[in-house]
Amino acid sequence: MIFRQLFDHESYTYTYLLADEATREAIIIDPVLSQVENNLRLINELTLKLIAAVDTHVHADHITALDALRNSTDCQTWLGNPGEVQCVDHALEDQAVMHIGKLQLKVIYTPGHTDDSYCFYLQQNNAPMLFTGDTLLIRGTGRTDFQNGDAGQLFDSLHQKILTLPKQTRVFPGHDYKGWHESTLAEEIAHNPRLAITARDDFIKHMSTLDLPNPKMMDIAVPANRTCGKQPG
Amino acid sequence: MIFRQLFDHESYTYTYLLADEATREAIIIDPVLSQVENNLRLINELTLKLIAAVDTHVHADHITALDALRNSTDCQTWLGNPGEVQCVDHALEDQAVMHIGKLQLKVIYTPGHTDDSYCFYLQQNNAPMLFTGDTLLIRGTGRTDFQNGDAGQLFDSLHQKILTLPKQTRVFPGHDYKGWHESTLAEEIAHNPRLAITARDDFIKHMSTLDLPNPKMMDIAVPANRTCGKQPG
Repeated sequence: MIFRQLFDHESYTYTYLLADEATREAIIIDPVLSQVENNLRLINELTLKLIAAVDTHVHADHITALDALRNSTDCQTWLGNPGEVQCVDHALEDQAVMHIGKLQLKVIYTPGHTDDSYCFYLQQNNAPMLFTGDTLLIRGTGRTDFQNGDAGQLFDSLHQKILTLPKQTRVFPGHDYKGWHESTLAEEIAHNPRLAITARDDFIKHMSTLDLPNPKMMDIAVPANRTCGKQPG
Repeated sequence: MIFRQLFDHESYTYTYLLADEATREAIIIDPVLSQVENNLRLINELTLKLIAAVDTHVHADHITALDALRNSTDCQTWLGNPGEVQCVDHALEDQAVMHIGKLQLKVIYTPGHTDDSYCFYLQQNNAPMLFTGDTLLIRGTGRTDFQNGDAGQLFDSLHQKILTLPKQTRVFPGHDYKGWHESTLAEEIAHNPRLAITARDDFIKHMSTLDLPNPKMMDIAVPANRTCGKQPG
């Protein structure tokens, strides 16, 4: 497998490029519009064929590159919640499997941060990989106070779906603000303060008291991302 | 092996933490002073014992955490060029091997970016890892216009030492400004414009025409790093 984690310095977003080394078919997860040229350069230099671009959810902090990548590569675009986001080629469904050559990424519906949040799980013998978007962050979780976020749902997604995966699973989040690039489920279970809250009601109460400012780009990013980042004109 | 790449957003510096999973002994490469608390937190949470902190060279763009980590953990500090940097416990020597539990990091003297630049090579069967500091960057190299930098020496270090390593070697640089986290030697040979200059004289001429501004923190960082980042007072 070819695997690259990429970073957008402006929005602190991690983008992931995964490819089957033999067939050269590739998928990109959570691409950022301002990084499209960089993404296309890397895909080209690694002689990959991008077959899919997928977002873990409709982001509020950056504009997605789904539309731009589709226009440049003829890749398919995938995203959950097709009722609101009709621009994508395929709607993600819980437990579906995305095939990229021999790679299989299982789709896990994990509402809570938003109502359209999904995680992607790559089964591998010793070190499975989980792309968590904003559902599970390193030593944190996404917030739950907009885009139909729901703290109770996030608690259920984390405890009933994510934490039932193997403990050695490598965790690759959508963001990190302290410069950490990855974690494991075992590590998060041991040291993530939000996972240490084991009662659902306590978690809901905790999340309701955060009083966070809205993301800077929210008013621009959310509408733009509902058209897959298609630019006007 | 436990391996983590970390990032300092202010100076765009990559720091690397490597540990023997069994003995828990760890080494940190190119730690940044402002990240010490984050580094110590991670080392503690991963239940590691830091035995060494090492810089690839005396940096001009950030202050090293060598002294701070030594004070907090009793680790040894390693750095080249002991004539100028007498604060370290051990001076790096070409072809020496740093032992971290069962991990063996080979020291390769690669002058050019500075006269005290070293790369560290972790031999592994399928995917050896090379920590290149500023000697080899992703699609670039370090500059050669201060701290006794020498374009001819950099050319020799790259072509006689680095490019003789296995092509599948994973490359982990000291910085990247476009959000790319790693590369391979094969990829750099194919796509790094500075490695495409195959005549030594042409490389020297190219490097002499870059006309780059000095790093913002140079006047503070270089003197501070010659005392291992020891803070006054």
